[in-house]
Amino acid sequence: MARKASLSGFPEWLPQERLVELHVLDSLRRTFELHGFSSIETRAVETVAQLLRKGEIDKEVYGLHRLQADEAEGKGDDKLALHFDLTVPFARYVVENAGHLAFPFRRYQIQKVWRGERPQEGRAREFTQADIDVVGDGELPFRYDVELALVIVEALSALPIPDFKLRVNNRKLAEGFYRGIGLTDTAGVLRSIDKLEKIGPEKVAALLQEELGATDEQAQAALKLASIRTEDTSFVDQVRALGVQHELLETGLAELEEVIGEAHRRAPGKVMADLSIARGLDYYTGTVYETVLVGHEQLGSICSGGRYDALATKGNRTFPGVGLSIGVTRLVMRILGQEFATASRHVPTAVLVTLANEDSWSQAQDVAGQLRERGISVEVAAKADKFGKQIKYADRRGIPFVWFTSVAEDGSHSHEVKDIRSGDQHAADPASWAPPAEDLVPQVTPAAH
Amino acid sequence: MARKASLSGFPEWLPQERLVELHVLDSLRRTFELHGFSSIETRAVETVAQLLRKGEIDKEVYGLHRLQADEAEGKGDDKLALHFDLTVPFARYVVENAGHLAFPFRRYQIQKVWRGERPQEGRAREFTQADIDVVGDGELPFRYDVELALVIVEALSALPIPDFKLRVNNRKLAEGFYRGIGLTDTAGVLRSIDKLEKIGPEKVAALLQEELGATDEQAQAALKLASIRTEDTSFVDQVRALGVQHELLETGLAELEEVIGEAHRRAPGKVMADLSIARGLDYYTGTVYETVLVGHEQLGSICSGGRYDALATKGNRTFPGVGLSIGVTRLVMRILGQEFATASRHVPTAVLVTLANEDSWSQAQDVAGQLRERGISVEVAAKADKFGKQIKYADRRGIPFVWFTSVAEDGSHSHEVKDIRSGDQHAADPASWAPPAEDLVPQVTPAAH
Repeated sequence: MARKASLSGFPEWLPQERLVELHVLDSLRRTFELHGFSSIETRAVETVAQLLRKGEIDKEVYGLHRLQADEAEGKGDDKLALHFDLTVPFARYVVENAGHLAFPFRRYQIQKVWRGERPQEGRAREFTQADIDVVGDGELPFRYDVELALVIVEALSALPIPDFKLRVNNRKLAEGFYRGIGLTDTAGVLRSIDKLEKIGPEKVAALLQEELGATDEQAQAALKLASIRTEDTSFVDQVRALGVQHELLETGLAELEEVIGEAHRRAPGKVMADLSIARGLDYYTGTVYETVLVGHEQLGSICSGGRYDALATKGNRTFPGVGLSIGVTRLVMRILGQEFATASRHVPTAVLVTLANEDSWSQAQDVAGQLRERGISVEVAAKADKFGKQIKYADRRGIPFVWFTSVAEDGSHSHEVKDIRSGDQHAADPASWAPPAEDLVPQVTPAAH
Repeated sequence: MARKASLSGFPEWLPQERLVELHVLDSLRRTFELHGFSSIETRAVETVAQLLRKGEIDKEVYGLHRLQADEAEGKGDDKLALHFDLTVPFARYVVENAGHLAFPFRRYQIQKVWRGERPQEGRAREFTQADIDVVGDGELPFRYDVELALVIVEALSALPIPDFKLRVNNRKLAEGFYRGIGLTDTAGVLRSIDKLEKIGPEKVAALLQEELGATDEQAQAALKLASIRTEDTSFVDQVRALGVQHELLETGLAELEEVIGEAHRRAPGKVMADLSIARGLDYYTGTVYETVLVGHEQLGSICSGGRYDALATKGNRTFPGVGLSIGVTRLVMRILGQEFATASRHVPTAVLVTLANEDSWSQAQDVAGQLRERGISVEVAAKADKFGKQIKYADRRGIPFVWFTSVAEDGSHSHEVKDIRSGDQHAADPASWAPPAEDLVPQVTPAAH
C-alpha cells in the first residue's frame, strides 16, 4: 500500500498483497459454505432499466458502449451498465431462476462491483463485495435475521482484522416510534438521523424541524431514541422509558430483542443494538445492520445489510430476504495499510529443484513431479547456472528450500535438500520428503500488535 | 444449460452448475500454485489508449461512461474500457510494478474478460480466462516454452473434459520457411494460413496468389508446410524434405523440436507439432500454442498462447514472456452442456439439524457449531415444523443427513443422525461424528461415457 494505484480508485495488489486478499476470500468462502450457503455469480452487467428500477439512486453507475458501435445502437433502457452492488443482480437472478431454486434459498456471492464515485480513503471505484443472503418464497421466518448476524460474526472473527462491532437496528422500531410521536414522513426522519454521525445532534434537530416540520419536542424524542446503544436487551426498557406507544414499535422491539438476545448469548461483545443506524436510501423494512472496526470507525461500515419484505417480486409472488454485504476491498486495504497481517512468503513455491547440468532438466522435473504429488509447490531451475546463482534465485523469491540431485557413476541418484534460511542440508527422498507444515503453503498470519 | 441466458452472451449458472465451475477453477488454481505461479488480479478496466496500443485490433471493446457524467467528460485516450483479455493488462502491470517483482516472474490470473462480439456457440460476451505466463527482464530462457506446455497439459488433464491435443508451432519456423521460398510478407502469409481450417487449402492457395503475389509453387510449398502434423519430432525430417534453407527456419525447427521432444517423453499423446497453427493477429514471435478437445474441434481452441520477444517494454528494458490462456467459460459451457461432469449434490450442506421445538434453536446451533469445527457444512432448521416437513426440506436440497436431538427429563441430550437416502438412523455424538468422506463436500465427478 506504499504504492499508489496507477488509475485512481482502481487498486491492484502485488503478489504478496494478493496472498493476503486470497486468504480473506478463502476464509469467507469457507465460513459461508460451512453454514450451507451456495456460491453463485451473476454477470457484471445489468440493463440500465434494471439498475434504476428502484427509482432514486445514490450510486454512480458506469454505462457500457461498444467502441465500434454505430451511434444509433443501444440507446434507452436496454443499454448495459456495470452493477454497483450484488443485491440488485441477485434479486433479478432469483426471479429469473425461481423455478430452479429451492426456497428458502441461501447463497453467497463474492464479486467485483463498480461505482463511479470520487475515490477516497476506504472508497474505491472497483471493489470486491462478499454477500450472503437468504431469500424465501412468500415468507421467510424472522429467525434468519438472527442467524445471518451470527454467520457474519463468525466470518469476520476468522479474518486478520481488529475487533469489530455489528450494530443492529430495526426499521419497524424506528418507524413505529416516529409515528408514535406524530412524525409521519418516516423516510425523511431516517434520512436526517442517518446524518447524525456526520453533522451531530444539533444540526439533525434543526433538519428535522426545518425540513420535516417537527416540533422541538419531536426532534428531541427522535434524537433520544437514536442515542440508545446497548450490548444486551436492556435497550427495550430504555425505549419503553420514552413512553411512546405504537403497534409497529412493539413489533420492532420484539424483533430486535430476538437478534440482540441471541447474539449476546452466542457472540458476547460482538453485536450491539444501536438505535441510530438508519442505512440511508436502502430499502430495508425491518432489521438493519452496520459494522465498524473498533478504533477505525472513520473507515465507515465494513459490513452492512438488512431485511427486505420484498427483495424481489414476480407476478403476485413476493420474495422476502435478509442479507449482509462485506466490503472486502475496504477491509483488505486496511489490513495491508496497517499491516494487520502479512504473508510468510511471496510465492507459493516451497522448493526450487536445482540443475546440476543442462541435461538434468527432465530428471529434475521427475523429482518435482514426485514432490507435487504430495501437494508441495515446486519450481525447477530453468538454467544450470552455478549453484550459488540458483540458490540466490530461490532466496530473492523467499522460496525456503532448494533441492540438489547428483548422479553417481553407476547411474544411481542421491538427493539433498537445503533450508536456505538456516543453512541446514540433509539427504532426502523425493518419494517421501515434505517440508514442515508451516512451510507447505504461504501462511497469512495476524501481526502481533 | 437447458436455460437460455437472459442476456445473450452473458451466461449465468445455477448453484449446481456453479459447483462444476468452482471445481474447474479450484483445480486450475491448485495446479498453477503447485508449479509456483503467483496469483495476481488486475483491474477490469484499462484506458482505451492502453487497449489499442498495439494498433490493429480484432476484438470488440466495451467502453465505459458514467451515466451521470457531463457530455464533455472523459473523451479521448484516457477514456476507460473493459479489458478483452488478460495479456494486455498483465503487460501493463509488469511495467508498473517492475521494481517490486522478482524476475523471471511467474503469475496466474483467473478473471472475467469482455468482448462485444456476436454471441455464438462457445463464444460469450463475458467470460472467464485462466492465464499463466512467465516474464523475464531482458531475457527469458527458451526452456520456459517447454515448461509452460507441460504445466498446461497437467492443468487440463486434471479437469473433467474429454481428451485434448495441445498443438504447437513456431513463428520463426514458419517465417523462416516463407522467406526461404521467397515470400517476404510473412504476416500476410500467416493470416492466409490461419484461414486453412475455415476455407480449405484451395482457397488459401488462391489468397496467397491473389493477395500476396505468390507463385503457384510458393503457395503449394506454404500449404505443404502447413500440412505437417506429428506427435514426435519427426516433423523435423518432413520439413527438411521440403528442401528449404533459412537461418530463421533452423532456429524455429530447433525450438519446436525441444518442445515436442520433451512433451512427447513426459506427456505422450497430449502434445503435437502442427505446422498449420498461425494464431491470427496475435503478436507472438516464437512458439505458438492452440488446444482442441478431441471430438469437439468445432468448439475452437480452448487454450492458446505463445512467446513474445517483448511482452512489455519500459524505456530500454524489454520483458519477454511466454504464456497460455485457458477459456474457462467455453470449457464449462461444454462440460455442462454435454454433462461431462456433475456435482453429487446442489448445496454445500451435509447435515440439517432439526428442531424438536421452537425453544431448541440455540441448542441446535451448539450442535451445528460442534460439527462445523470438523469442517462439516451444517444448516439449522429455521422453524420447528413437523419432522416430516424438516426432512423434506433437506431432501429437496439434496442434504444427505438430518440430525435429531432429544432432551430427557433429567436434562441430558441424546442425538441421532439419519441418512435420508438409505433411511439408516444411528445414535451419534456431535463431538465426534463425521459423514463418510465422499459426503463431506459436494463431489464433482466425470460422467461415465
